Amino acid sequence: MNGEEARRFDAVQVHEQIVAVLRAWGMPDGSAAATATVMVETDLAGIDSHGVSMLMLYEKLRSENRLRLDAVPRVVRDAPAFAVVDAGAGLGHPAGLHAVELAIGKAAESGIGAVAVGNSHHLGALGYYVRSAAQHGLVALMATTTRTPVVAALGGTTPILGTNPIAFAAPRVGGGELVVDMSTSVVAMNKVKAYALSGRDLPPGWVNDRLGNPVTDAALAYSLLTTQEGTLSPLGGSTAETGGHKGFGLSLMVQVLSAAFSGAALPLADGDSDNLGHFVLVVDPRSVAADGDTARYVDDLVRLMTRDEPDVVLPGEPEALARADRSHNGIPIPEGLLEHLRGICGRAGTAMILTPLG
Amino acid sequence: MNGEEARRFDAVQVHEQIVAVLRAWGMPDGSAAATATVMVETDLAGIDSHGVSMLMLYEKLRSENRLRLDAVPRVVRDAPAFAVVDAGAGLGHPAGLHAVELAIGKAAESGIGAVAVGNSHHLGALGYYVRSAAQHGLVALMATTTRTPVVAALGGTTPILGTNPIAFAAPRVGGGELVVDMSTSVVAMNKVKAYALSGRDLPPGWVNDRLGNPVTDAALAYSLLTTQEGTLSPLGGSTAETGGHKGFGLSLMVQVLSAAFSGAALPLADGDSDNLGHFVLVVDPRSVAADGDTARYVDDLVRLMTRDEPDVVLPGEPEALARADRSHNGIPIPEGLLEHLRGICGRAGTAMILTPLG
Repeated sequence: MNGEEARRFDAVQVHEQIVAVLRAWGMPDGSAAATATVMVETDLAGIDSHGVSMLMLYEKLRSENRLRLDAVPRVVRDAPAFAVVDAGAGLGHPAGLHAVELAIGKAAESGIGAVAVGNSHHLGALGYYVRSAAQHGLVALMATTTRTPVVAALGGTTPILGTNPIAFAAPRVGGGELVVDMSTSVVAMNKVKAYALSGRDLPPGWVNDRLGNPVTDAALAYSLLTTQEGTLSPLGGSTAETGGHKGFGLSLMVQVLSAAFSGAALPLADGDSDNLGHFVLVVDPRSVAADGDTARYVDDLVRLMTRDEPDVVLPGEPEALARADRSHNGIPIPEGLLEHLRGICGRAGTAMILTPLG
Repeated sequence: MNGEEARRFDAVQVHEQIVAVLRAWGMPDGSAAATATVMVETDLAGIDSHGVSMLMLYEKLRSENRLRLDAVPRVVRDAPAFAVVDAGAGLGHPAGLHAVELAIGKAAESGIGAVAVGNSHHLGALGYYVRSAAQHGLVALMATTTRTPVVAALGGTTPILGTNPIAFAAPRVGGGELVVDMSTSVVAMNKVKAYALSGRDLPPGWVNDRLGNPVTDAALAYSLLTTQEGTLSPLGGSTAETGGHKGFGLSLMVQVLSAAFSGAALPLADGDSDNLGHFVLVVDPRSVAADGDTARYVDDLVRLMTRDEPDVVLPGEPEALARADRSHNGIPIPEGLLEHLRGICGRAGTAMILTPLG
């Protein structure tokens, strides 16, 4: 997509490399291993924007003293089926994993369980978390606030909300999972970048300048977004006529679920840490249905969608295809990113161990 | 919107009229009053498609022996924070209200509570239910399957999923509520109808014929949708390029949450009753946060959205404006609908009591 040649690297080695960097930065061993697993699984799923490449942002946040790598997430409020976790200004991955585990335990007791996380940072792609719950036969929904304001309120011209993603997963018969993982913006920032790199114009309605005028030059649009001089439309586009009020509504829903219970930041807040909030809900179908009934329903539903419809792409399918390819052939890392990783290893005082496959 | 002159009727009288019809159809008094309240509140909120006009569909379903007006919803599976309700093939309103009440009780005990409803029918607009929970200081999320297949799987050409709406509400300081209530299709069926009535062309990507070709003639598009000869795109449009995979994913999420726990119907199922499924989740913020903290967060969030942005329309705002108008000036009922209501009253053997205001 970005035109760079990218050599492939074995997932186990990428994991080892990430662990080495995180430990050098002071992250406890268990958290480092778990965080590296989320990041590598995200790269394996083809979501390059949220995998090992994120080390660049994490290094920057750490150097600005905004990110505490040694944080240990802890439960600060606890109800039978709901809890609040304080991530201690650490990375979101250990807190997110802790939240999913807690919610699973509560769902086993109560039928459902939810956890809100506050005082957190970036936690990678949500797909990994909800899929891991679905792999245990559970249904999971997750949401998170994000750090960069890019989406305007519908009718507004100020970038204020993040891309505020939501994810959902449910088990299927035979071990597969239905996985939905999506930003509530019209497209992800990466898609604007991809249009810019391939020299294509954006459809009007994706990106507007601060006067509310559409920007179709993709390179200009991307630059406006990264400098907060433009806005990315919510899912549905920039007007209510095309459904933009729905994406805006979803974004507000994500913001409230993720942040309002845990004291996480409002949009545009200017605190010491990003103070992101996450929300996870786990439903244990076995609490109310015969074992396997829900997975069978999901399986039948998915079959219905693809019956006589060869062109249907199910949510999560592109990621499953990438996973099959990359587990076998390795994770592609472009030379530019490798160069950044060399610098990160050097500054962290740990060896760069990545060597290309083949 | 539909060009018909519409005289106004007092909400109390509309309520009385609906109760009379529902009782004549055999609905128990309490359920009839509660159902009428949901329907009238929906008309007051300006959602004419889901209020008193629905009596036409309910009469049809009843005459086909698909709808049991005397059904009493009952809990069939019960876990501490989760339950399944069987609506007994009755109208969705009593079952939906029962589910919200149950979920509120569970949330008071456990922090959160959820209820899945099966064997149900149309329950009106979701906004009423989630708003009523938010009026008690609670955060609520709700979803439902719908009866008419109109949305295709992304990349497919068969109408298979309903408009599968989702709704969310959260309390604000001082008694207002943030309310999101949206179908997961690109637009509601009503918007296509409104375009047809005003003679405007649809944007390409909203409605496709069974070969996958865009249909922009709104009258033709509406007719294709009602005969299952066309498909309505999911939110985001008919391609993944514009985000259609997100709307498709949301629609599947709604389908699973609403139907997979309660044994409600798969899409295209051909049973005796519609066998719709609903899902409601209630979060009690007081279980994990100081009283008022969540409402204050929501209030601050809403203020941020509108700060220096005169053109921003918040989700739920058009409904609040309609409510203010109609509570004072009455509910507009076009002559065509009045004529239908006269027929319904006649066939039910109850008096038509509606008399226009002023």
